[in-house]
Amino acid sequence: MTGNGAGSNGKLMDLLDEPVPGVGTYEDFNTIDWVREKSKDRDRHREITSKSEQSTWDLLHSISDAFSGWLLMLLIGLLSGALAGCIDISAHWLTDLKEGVCLSGFWFNHEHCCWGSNQTTFQERDRCPQWQSWAELLGGSSEGAAAYIVNYLMFMLCALLFSFLAVILVRAFAPYACGSGIPEIKTILSGFIIRGYLGKWTLIIKTITLVLAVSSGLSLGKEGPLVHVACCCANILCHLFTKYRQNEAKRREVLSAAAAVGVSVAFGAPIGGVLFSLEEVSYYFPLKTLWRSFFAALVAAFTLRSINPFGNSRLVLFYVEFHTPWHMVELVPFILLGIFGGLWGALFIRANIAWCRRRKTTRLGHYPVLEVLVVTGITALLSFPNSYTRMSGSELISELFNDCSLLDSSQLCDYNSSENSNTLPDRPAGPGVYTALWQLALALFFKMLVTVVTFGMKVPSGLFIPSMAVGAIAGRLLGVAMEQMALNHHDWLIVKGWCSSGADCITPGLYAMVGAAACLGGVTRMTISLVVIMFELTGGLEYIVPLMAAIMTSKWVADALGREGIYEAHIRLNGYPFLETKEEYGHKTLAQDVMRPRQSDPLLVVLTQEGMSVGEIEGVIADTDYSGFPVVVSQESQRLVGFVLRRDLVISLDNARKRQEGVVSASLVFFLEHVPPQPFSGPPVVKLRGILDLSPFTVTDHTPMAIAVDIFRKLGLRQCLVTHNGLFALQINKYIDPM
Amino acid sequence: MTGNGAGSNGKLMDLLDEPVPGVGTYEDFNTIDWVREKSKDRDRHREITSKSEQSTWDLLHSISDAFSGWLLMLLIGLLSGALAGCIDISAHWLTDLKEGVCLSGFWFNHEHCCWGSNQTTFQERDRCPQWQSWAELLGGSSEGAAAYIVNYLMFMLCALLFSFLAVILVRAFAPYACGSGIPEIKTILSGFIIRGYLGKWTLIIKTITLVLAVSSGLSLGKEGPLVHVACCCANILCHLFTKYRQNEAKRREVLSAAAAVGVSVAFGAPIGGVLFSLEEVSYYFPLKTLWRSFFAALVAAFTLRSINPFGNSRLVLFYVEFHTPWHMVELVPFILLGIFGGLWGALFIRANIAWCRRRKTTRLGHYPVLEVLVVTGITALLSFPNSYTRMSGSELISELFNDCSLLDSSQLCDYNSSENSNTLPDRPAGPGVYTALWQLALALFFKMLVTVVTFGMKVPSGLFIPSMAVGAIAGRLLGVAMEQMALNHHDWLIVKGWCSSGADCITPGLYAMVGAAACLGGVTRMTISLVVIMFELTGGLEYIVPLMAAIMTSKWVADALGREGIYEAHIRLNGYPFLETKEEYGHKTLAQDVMRPRQSDPLLVVLTQEGMSVGEIEGVIADTDYSGFPVVVSQESQRLVGFVLRRDLVISLDNARKRQEGVVSASLVFFLEHVPPQPFSGPPVVKLRGILDLSPFTVTDHTPMAIAVDIFRKLGLRQCLVTHNGLFALQINKYIDPM
Repeated sequence: MTGNGAGSNGKLMDLLDEPVPGVGTYEDFNTIDWVREKSKDRDRHREITSKSEQSTWDLLHSISDAFSGWLLMLLIGLLSGALAGCIDISAHWLTDLKEGVCLSGFWFNHEHCCWGSNQTTFQERDRCPQWQSWAELLGGSSEGAAAYIVNYLMFMLCALLFSFLAVILVRAFAPYACGSGIPEIKTILSGFIIRGYLGKWTLIIKTITLVLAVSSGLSLGKEGPLVHVACCCANILCHLFTKYRQNEAKRREVLSAAAAVGVSVAFGAPIGGVLFSLEEVSYYFPLKTLWRSFFAALVAAFTLRSINPFGNSRLVLFYVEFHTPWHMVELVPFILLGIFGGLWGALFIRANIAWCRRRKTTRLGHYPVLEVLVVTGITALLSFPNSYTRMSGSELISELFNDCSLLDSSQLCDYNSSENSNTLPDRPAGPGVYTALWQLALALFFKMLVTVVTFGMKVPSGLFIPSMAVGAIAGRLLGVAMEQMALNHHDWLIVKGWCSSGADCITPGLYAMVGAAACLGGVTRMTISLVVIMFELTGGLEYIVPLMAAIMTSKWVADALGREGIYEAHIRLNGYPFLETKEEYGHKTLAQDVMRPRQSDPLLVVLTQEGMSVGEIEGVIADTDYSGFPVVVSQESQRLVGFVLRRDLVISLDNARKRQEGVVSASLVFFLEHVPPQPFSGPPVVKLRGILDLSPFTVTDHTPMAIAVDIFRKLGLRQCLVTHNGLFALQINKYIDPM
Repeated sequence: MTGNGAGSNGKLMDLLDEPVPGVGTYEDFNTIDWVREKSKDRDRHREITSKSEQSTWDLLHSISDAFSGWLLMLLIGLLSGALAGCIDISAHWLTDLKEGVCLSGFWFNHEHCCWGSNQTTFQERDRCPQWQSWAELLGGSSEGAAAYIVNYLMFMLCALLFSFLAVILVRAFAPYACGSGIPEIKTILSGFIIRGYLGKWTLIIKTITLVLAVSSGLSLGKEGPLVHVACCCANILCHLFTKYRQNEAKRREVLSAAAAVGVSVAFGAPIGGVLFSLEEVSYYFPLKTLWRSFFAALVAAFTLRSINPFGNSRLVLFYVEFHTPWHMVELVPFILLGIFGGLWGALFIRANIAWCRRRKTTRLGHYPVLEVLVVTGITALLSFPNSYTRMSGSELISELFNDCSLLDSSQLCDYNSSENSNTLPDRPAGPGVYTALWQLALALFFKMLVTVVTFGMKVPSGLFIPSMAVGAIAGRLLGVAMEQMALNHHDWLIVKGWCSSGADCITPGLYAMVGAAACLGGVTRMTISLVVIMFELTGGLEYIVPLMAAIMTSKWVADALGREGIYEAHIRLNGYPFLETKEEYGHKTLAQDVMRPRQSDPLLVVLTQEGMSVGEIEGVIADTDYSGFPVVVSQESQRLVGFVLRRDLVISLDNARKRQEGVVSASLVFFLEHVPPQPFSGPPVVKLRGILDLSPFTVTDHTPMAIAVDIFRKLGLRQCLVTHNGLFALQINKYIDPM
């Protein structure tokens, strides 16, 4: 505005050399240009460093800039750890509220309620007068069919209430808060922009509705959504630091770390979390980020531990310590579990995707609230009678992983202790174990079916816990079977070697753990990160080999039936643009075979570096919908000068028309560095050198597509231009269909 | 040879379409072209996959090809684990041989010798009649000054003998076997070729001399060389599989995994090993390799464990389990240890590099054998009187990490037990502890000095153990000081909070461990991998925070004094071409500023796609020493067609002259796809389309160098061509000097 009256060409140019607001930013649902973002950050960093020698203030600024990344990580760790703690505590309380209420204060959960109680014998520790089931509270009696029905009804009522609240809140305030969030985060990390997906409303609503959804007893877990919650925290905290607020690439580095934080608090596995982020979700993960993620993951884990949500100074409910070594022969059942996990993983993905596609395409999708209520109702109805489905997913897993100790009162540990009652091992199963086996078998089928319809509903829903639960049940069943087989057939050659009478030889809990890992591996296709997460849960290198055998088998089996993991399948289902980094590009095509436009199509639209008028360029913009235009020396020579983005061009031309006096449609546009002297009579020229990308990426038309795809992946390009013998030919865009 | 008589143009061309032997291979001390290697492998893989549907045999071939990677990893794990076990056992035995010999069999080490003994009380467990010190054996007495002198002399004699053998063997058979090998492996992994560095002679000699060097009592460790040994195993085993034998890029993936295996067996830390490979040595580390490395590292660890070299079913001597939690206030001494570690790391690197440069430039370098003997002599002379320097590095570390238990007989655990003798904690130090402190202080100075001159001598020498020893001594000293301070000043505000009387509040062993990590971090600048290795040594997440605080401080302090870790410093000292992946390219230059030749230099030599004769091209080759030549449409238009490597060109022209009848200097060379019809009278043409790289990488002259360097790193290019407005301009090579 200041230069308006002057009309001096020189002044106007200076003014135009300043960045036009909007140039260099991105629209929603667009991909970022990693190279440009990293260049921007490099320039910023260089400027700060070079300034730092000028004054103490600048030096301090430079130091604070260097440490702002660490500070940000600390804040993310603290906030995410605290949120995870709150979620754990609230979900625990709400889950117990379905069964009863604490008289000494309704905000106590069952366990806390009975802590102050006098009846502290081991068997009776969860029975205390302060804790009253709904039947006791409403009907006065805790026995009999009537009480059972009252409890049943209250259980269903609470479940329906919770899930109704969850789905309503999600729909009303933050539609992005539903689902697990990992497919979208993968897409965002690969460079896509979805505004609001990691915003404050999503964070608040996802936190609240996650608690409600988990408590409602649906077959879902909190682990995936915790990654989303941590990423929201990170994104919001990024706004505190200019460095991260203004640079999409830097922000994605922080988000990668946040994904690690999410898994770290979900499983109490900081190293596993970092590897999960590296293996599963991240796209660009430099070493510096690796190290910072680890820091953030550790801070979060320690924050969560000091909150101590489970009262066992562990971060998760299902931490275990096994004491019995395993034997080589047991690798056979472990590999069987791996096959089961792989089959189930592949099957689950197909069934779930088919169901989700049906939801997208048929009228089912129009009634999300009703769908949630129906599924919750059925789940609650079927799960109450069976104690293994009535308990929450993590409690179930914890129970199944458990290595029966002498004092254990659970049904699964009801072994007949023979003559001398204090030797634990080598006992025949009692009636409790057989009942438990039946119930578990039913629970297995129930979980398998209900998880398929649950994942993808409009409530926050993670997949880790249900998958692990399925695997853990299968594993425990096989483990108990193996145990009893070994017990009854001590003389079998295969067992003789290591199962001497009187010694503990098979740990059913270990089978449950291996099964859980195998199923989770089949569904998500995680490998090393899953092994490390499980390793951090057991805390012993001893059991890595069984886990690894099962996870590898599971991955191979599942891959043979379908290459995609559940997250990739959902990315494809939702049509997000995502360039898979793990798959090799398998076709022997050259760049000239896939570039657009095809040779038969009309020629690609290009701009020339001089001689085009504002009106002509605006015409080109209006006629086409390309996201950018190559700039060439002249229409005849087609020699490439640079590339200009459509968005930058539109903004700059608008800006020139508004702020630069006298710009009309006939004004000439120059992309040259030195504008030739103009006659004073003509309209003023528009100089757009500033928005021209002078270093567009080019490949020759003979470049194999596999190499071109590699360049796209590794450098994070948006587009690449194809040249033929040095002449600009055509262009390929990022999300070419590889078929 | 078959086509010689025919003279038919068509037949000759078919013949020439076959690959000429030698084309596509590399010379020694050259860098590989990652893009070309990966393309080659992709083509091979595609061919096998497409064939697999044709017959059962091809299908089997395709499956065996897919699993050959896993089989190779298994073999590497088994071989490396077994070798590491042998090295551990032999080194243990030879080290003990310096002090005495076992009468029941000279091949028993001290501990094994006394296993069968009857004197099995705890204190006397290492005294048994079968084990005789040299004084007892030679002089008949184990007491008195004479015996001491005999032992002293034999100790020195053995040390000199071992180190003499080591240096002689290295010089005679495998000069590459000296040093730690990690700098060279980093360089090789980044794409450089050093023939024989990972060959069978290097493997054999390095294994033998490593045992000798470690046993000689020099201040060096076996951890770094174990990485080299594992890489040799991998390289040799690669020859069993065509897929890895013929492809330099694939082989480097295997070598990356082998580096993980090396650390896995050195520290019993498979996950730490994989992260070490990822963070410290690898250049190209796709996820598939990550997963395979982990498998190989696990196999190696389990092989080593089943060999059980230390008799404690652990993989390392210094495995520890602490039981006392640490307190927030202790972070202050931990950070102090970090500062010490950083300072020592930076100082050590400078001193060691200065010393190595002196060795390279002065006459010192001419007498490597003498140097080794003198250093061994001085080390043995000074280390015998002090029990902490007399023991081997890992024994020392093990002793320092040790958390004093009640039964511990070591000098460092000689606490005055007060009234009731069975409470361990809160005891004043006894005279033994004070003696130990003095000896440790002396040992600290001795180790610091002697390590500087030892690392870089012509024997296999690792740096991990000496660095850790220095840090562990410093840490233990600080730990004991803190412990006694807390004991004597129970009323100090700072101590009051957590050191209630009668409770164990400070673990000096933990300080030793933190100190060891800090010093190792300062020297190598490892971060996450070091934390994970230490985590796997202690087996508890509890102690990660102290370790992380110390390692981070150490890295920051050391980085402030000098950016390079010891391996990078040695790479630069030896002048290896290595493009550091961690450093940002900090200058704001454009490609046009660094490309060669400069604008003032004569024009770059180019070939044209048609019209040049064999003689002209040979002239160009003779006149220049460029490693490759751009091919353009014509000298006038300078439009780029492709790039041809000097080596390929020389081989092809030689081949054409030898095998293709009638080729003379006047024969025309065509890089075109379709050779224009030639008059029959002229000499036959040479068609070189096959060796032309049709997809050379190009950037524009306005590309910032930071981006160009990024492209070099990420894609692993050898060279990149620079264009100006689509015209081929000039070229930049990989190892441009960034200044």
